[in-house]
Amino acid sequence: MENFEFYSPTCFVFGKDTESKAGELVKRFGGSKVLIHYGGGSVVRSGLLDRVKASLDKENIPYVELGGVKPNPRSGLVYEGIDLCRKENVDFVLAVGGGSTIDSSKAIAAGVVYDGDFWDFYQGKRIEKALSVGTILTIAAAGSEGSPDTVITKEEGMFKRGASGDAVRPKFSILNPALTQTLPAYQTAAGITDIMAHLYERYLTNSTDVEVTDRLIEALLLTMKHEGPRVIADPNNYEARANIMWAGMMAHNNSCGVGRSQDWNSHTIEHELSALYDCAHGAGLAVTMPAVFTYTMDHNVMRFAQAAVRIWGCQMDFEHPEVTAKEGIEAFRNFLSSIGMPKNFEELGAKEEDIPKLVEVLCRGDGRDGSISGFVTLNEDDCTKIYKMMV
Amino acid sequence: MENFEFYSPTCFVFGKDTESKAGELVKRFGGSKVLIHYGGGSVVRSGLLDRVKASLDKENIPYVELGGVKPNPRSGLVYEGIDLCRKENVDFVLAVGGGSTIDSSKAIAAGVVYDGDFWDFYQGKRIEKALSVGTILTIAAAGSEGSPDTVITKEEGMFKRGASGDAVRPKFSILNPALTQTLPAYQTAAGITDIMAHLYERYLTNSTDVEVTDRLIEALLLTMKHEGPRVIADPNNYEARANIMWAGMMAHNNSCGVGRSQDWNSHTIEHELSALYDCAHGAGLAVTMPAVFTYTMDHNVMRFAQAAVRIWGCQMDFEHPEVTAKEGIEAFRNFLSSIGMPKNFEELGAKEEDIPKLVEVLCRGDGRDGSISGFVTLNEDDCTKIYKMMV
Repeated sequence: MENFEFYSPTCFVFGKDTESKAGELVKRFGGSKVLIHYGGGSVVRSGLLDRVKASLDKENIPYVELGGVKPNPRSGLVYEGIDLCRKENVDFVLAVGGGSTIDSSKAIAAGVVYDGDFWDFYQGKRIEKALSVGTILTIAAAGSEGSPDTVITKEEGMFKRGASGDAVRPKFSILNPALTQTLPAYQTAAGITDIMAHLYERYLTNSTDVEVTDRLIEALLLTMKHEGPRVIADPNNYEARANIMWAGMMAHNNSCGVGRSQDWNSHTIEHELSALYDCAHGAGLAVTMPAVFTYTMDHNVMRFAQAAVRIWGCQMDFEHPEVTAKEGIEAFRNFLSSIGMPKNFEELGAKEEDIPKLVEVLCRGDGRDGSISGFVTLNEDDCTKIYKMMV
Repeated sequence: MENFEFYSPTCFVFGKDTESKAGELVKRFGGSKVLIHYGGGSVVRSGLLDRVKASLDKENIPYVELGGVKPNPRSGLVYEGIDLCRKENVDFVLAVGGGSTIDSSKAIAAGVVYDGDFWDFYQGKRIEKALSVGTILTIAAAGSEGSPDTVITKEEGMFKRGASGDAVRPKFSILNPALTQTLPAYQTAAGITDIMAHLYERYLTNSTDVEVTDRLIEALLLTMKHEGPRVIADPNNYEARANIMWAGMMAHNNSCGVGRSQDWNSHTIEHELSALYDCAHGAGLAVTMPAVFTYTMDHNVMRFAQAAVRIWGCQMDFEHPEVTAKEGIEAFRNFLSSIGMPKNFEELGAKEEDIPKLVEVLCRGDGRDGSISGFVTLNEDDCTKIYKMMV
């Protein structure tokens, strides 16, 4: 096991009606004036925003509002939020929404107390100071509710970049599974896929002998395998929603990633798909992962065989472990398809003729030197083949 | 899933030589004068104490020392520590040792900033304020390095009581598995048993439909099943020590206990054994758990059958699930015996003729009304039968 530091100081408040504790929690974590940051209409229409305001009112905590966060949140709104917070002397940013809203809130919180351009953080500067952030989560997927990370897209050039720092870890995150019951099935399934991807990216390690981390990842993948179909069959199944929501947080606060190398090639490869086609990140991952896994399987057949046996219930073929490994990948692909995720470029809305362009940006963009690295290093030829496998 | 709050803000610094970061971490978490609190000779003899002092010296952080913590830590030393901290203006308590040392440190930290008698906290008052605590763990067992709990024994009357509060959660915990390599095999095995008990106490729930928590507990029990024998066979197996140490923390910071009722009857029943015979807590649990599980099995046979199949690899007997359930309990008993733990009263050093006395204190002490409750409620007759099963 490699040396590591694990720090997840967020207070998670989980369960039914917990959004009514927002005011009390802002107070407990030292907030005196709040920016409520959110996306679009559903938070308003469902009455959630009103309930949050009522909770703040009850504690006599004043607030201002900023809506309009879009998927792949933009820098323009972050600048607007920073100005608003400074003008109004806000000291606490409360995100009401999914990963995009939380990421935008983290960016605003870091920017307000920083003298320079907040974009510096997205060009490599570590976030050391920020206003306090709290979240009320409305979709189980990105895991931003328990992470120190934020991803923002700069409008000029549409650069999508990440920043990080313990200062933007949420002070509290309110997780009410009932709030996710109104999500469309496709979005629910994309969220499930994203969560499973966060687990697989950690499973594909080149470190050895980290039994505890393997077992924890498998535990959460088994949970997703059990609960995913239940929630697709019945969107109002609170218990299934609850198991998924908690697994989603655990999948990405790095509880299940300590002491070992991780992959993240599937995320990197998918990124170009959602950038070009504006598809759901989870849907892109559903098409990407089986291709990446099949292509890289030989790098460590036993790792994929272990996943096949322990997660997908395959019989181990001791003479031909590669057969078991492949069976596990197929089982995962079929699972994703069964919950409504696309299986290939066509179902995703991607085009074969774009592959050269995708590979160019993937391997040469972001200052890359012709390859990406993770579980294995993949060059332009490898990536071309992987994209072709998705067709 | 029941509503819950999960809060584990401790910064865990894990791996080889991490005790050299003690000074840096005290500084990061705001300490300016330290009490180093520890137990007996091994911390001194191994040179660990010197390394910790060197690390504080390097950061120019002054310190005072207080050794002498015993297993089942006593109130006398806590009073001494409180006086010393006040006299020396200490603002940070650094525990170097196992669960007892950490618990004693938490008591001191809470007592220093409290006007009344610190024992009030152990009579039910919640700990709201305390000096900061940090830990350097030397045995994987109690889980106090990641918990808000502390247990102290009052010398007058030998009352053993617990107290709790987020204020005494360690700011940081240094976990270096190599520090546990010199432990005697019996103590290592007792620690393993204690960790597995923390998991089983959470597994025996009356809540339903908390798949994610079941799976996480099973993941850690599978880890212990794999790593326990490896570390007993080779005490210097760093990787096995590392997996056990991290599992031990996860087993008790409640990552694996959220959203459901828990048991703790085995701990309560064992407590009387270690109080009367001064045996290792883990050794007492090894004798207690199989008896409690066998006695309470009928309350939920399928839960024990699930454990048998998922953890102990038993074949499910669908016609007679009670056979599978029993097989799982036997497998656990054999496992504990295989790592050197006692199987019965005789091997533990307990006496059959003491059973009436044990039951009296168990069911009538601590203001109890003749029974104890958890997974099931057990009266004096039940407890007598359970102790007799251990003979």
